[in-house]
Amino acid sequence: MRVALGVSYRGGAYKGWQSQPGGGTVQDALEAALAQFAAQPVRTICAGRTDTGVHGLNQVVHFDSPVDREKFSWVRGTNRYLPPDIAVQWCAFPGEGFHARNWARGRRYCYLLLESNVRPAIEHGAVGWTFRPLDGDAMRDAAARLIGEHDFSSFRSAECQAASPIKQLRKIEIHRRGAYWRFEFDASAFLHHMVRNLMGCLIAVGTGNRPPAWIDEVLAARSRDAAAPTFAPDGLYFVGPYYDAPLGLPERTAAMDWLP
Amino acid sequence: MRVALGVSYRGGAYKGWQSQPGGGTVQDALEAALAQFAAQPVRTICAGRTDTGVHGLNQVVHFDSPVDREKFSWVRGTNRYLPPDIAVQWCAFPGEGFHARNWARGRRYCYLLLESNVRPAIEHGAVGWTFRPLDGDAMRDAAARLIGEHDFSSFRSAECQAASPIKQLRKIEIHRRGAYWRFEFDASAFLHHMVRNLMGCLIAVGTGNRPPAWIDEVLAARSRDAAAPTFAPDGLYFVGPYYDAPLGLPERTAAMDWLP
Repeated sequence: MRVALGVSYRGGAYKGWQSQPGGGTVQDALEAALAQFAAQPVRTICAGRTDTGVHGLNQVVHFDSPVDREKFSWVRGTNRYLPPDIAVQWCAFPGEGFHARNWARGRRYCYLLLESNVRPAIEHGAVGWTFRPLDGDAMRDAAARLIGEHDFSSFRSAECQAASPIKQLRKIEIHRRGAYWRFEFDASAFLHHMVRNLMGCLIAVGTGNRPPAWIDEVLAARSRDAAAPTFAPDGLYFVGPYYDAPLGLPERTAAMDWLP
Repeated sequence: MRVALGVSYRGGAYKGWQSQPGGGTVQDALEAALAQFAAQPVRTICAGRTDTGVHGLNQVVHFDSPVDREKFSWVRGTNRYLPPDIAVQWCAFPGEGFHARNWARGRRYCYLLLESNVRPAIEHGAVGWTFRPLDGDAMRDAAARLIGEHDFSSFRSAECQAASPIKQLRKIEIHRRGAYWRFEFDASAFLHHMVRNLMGCLIAVGTGNRPPAWIDEVLAARSRDAAAPTFAPDGLYFVGPYYDAPLGLPERTAAMDWLP
């Protein structure tokens, strides 16, 4: 039976999502826990691979279960074998053809950024940081220029394995609560380092280093050299994928109420 | 010159606030950083000692500076030598007689609690957890019975060194945001483990294990045996002390906007 799980994790202690020969990734930890619970090897496919230090709020994976278990047993049983910074949030049986990556209609990320004279401490590893004041209106102007279907080569890392640099960026929303900025991104899919590269450019505009219209030049250049440096992974959260509504897969997890 | 600092820290990696011969406490880390910056030993006195795993939002310390430095230098210079989960937030020169502990008019704590079928992951170490649904009105009824000047012996650990168990509890507020509950405590001072013991009792009422009026019995018993078990330290934050307004010491830090 095909099983789908929603997984939350704090990325700080892991070498990203994708399994590596030496281990130490979120996928390695999840598959080890699933294997212990199912007493057989389990290989998972995820909706979106995350980099070293990047967090997941509702990562979705699928696999074919070697055993029959209730939904709540998959959640509780797997969590028993997971480290404290990873937890399965929900389980669903979405039908045989379901594919966590191929069936996703889009993906959401958010970036949390502290604007303060002083670096983070309590929220260390969970937030990016700038000591320079940011202009929200300038950043919103810049963000609006990125919406739509574009060639995002300027925001793509050299190691990106995506077949095409053309993606549809559906939304960028920028909110502020006290000292914290929250940037929300929604796209058909994201290129490697795309959100961190977008953040670098939005912050360059927010601090006044660049005018909002500079974003048009960066986008048109289709070259990584045209953009700002890749911003830190600390504040980056893979909010999760979304699917066709009739599948009924949860798009929210408790941790989404935790963040500013 | 007498110097006051406001300090934020994540408590998970430390054996509480107070310096120990073997090191590994927040005070040890702070004094080591101050000594590096000042190039001389510095001994600090804090407003409220926190236990292992407890966090600080605006802990206040004072010391007599062996060197003349600008306020911003104390902040920036000390932070350079502090680990990433501790940061000085502000510096003030409050005058010669100032004493971080003795001059405090009161102290605030807050406790963050996740109510969910699934344990925390993203916010692991930063929040307490209950899988049983909580009744906010019942907890508020119980909390109201604790307000005022009382003998809090039922909520005091055996190791408590306070001269008197009589404290003035000025406020308990209980708010909810999504899956997270926030409990705010304000008192003249707190006994050892007092907030964690209060939390154990409030949760016993919130889950329906005990009626709100049971709190009257616990208080009247003046015995630790009458109360619920001490709750986990993970969700406990020392918000900070407060002083007479003319001193002008900051009562807020950026991290207070971070938490739900």
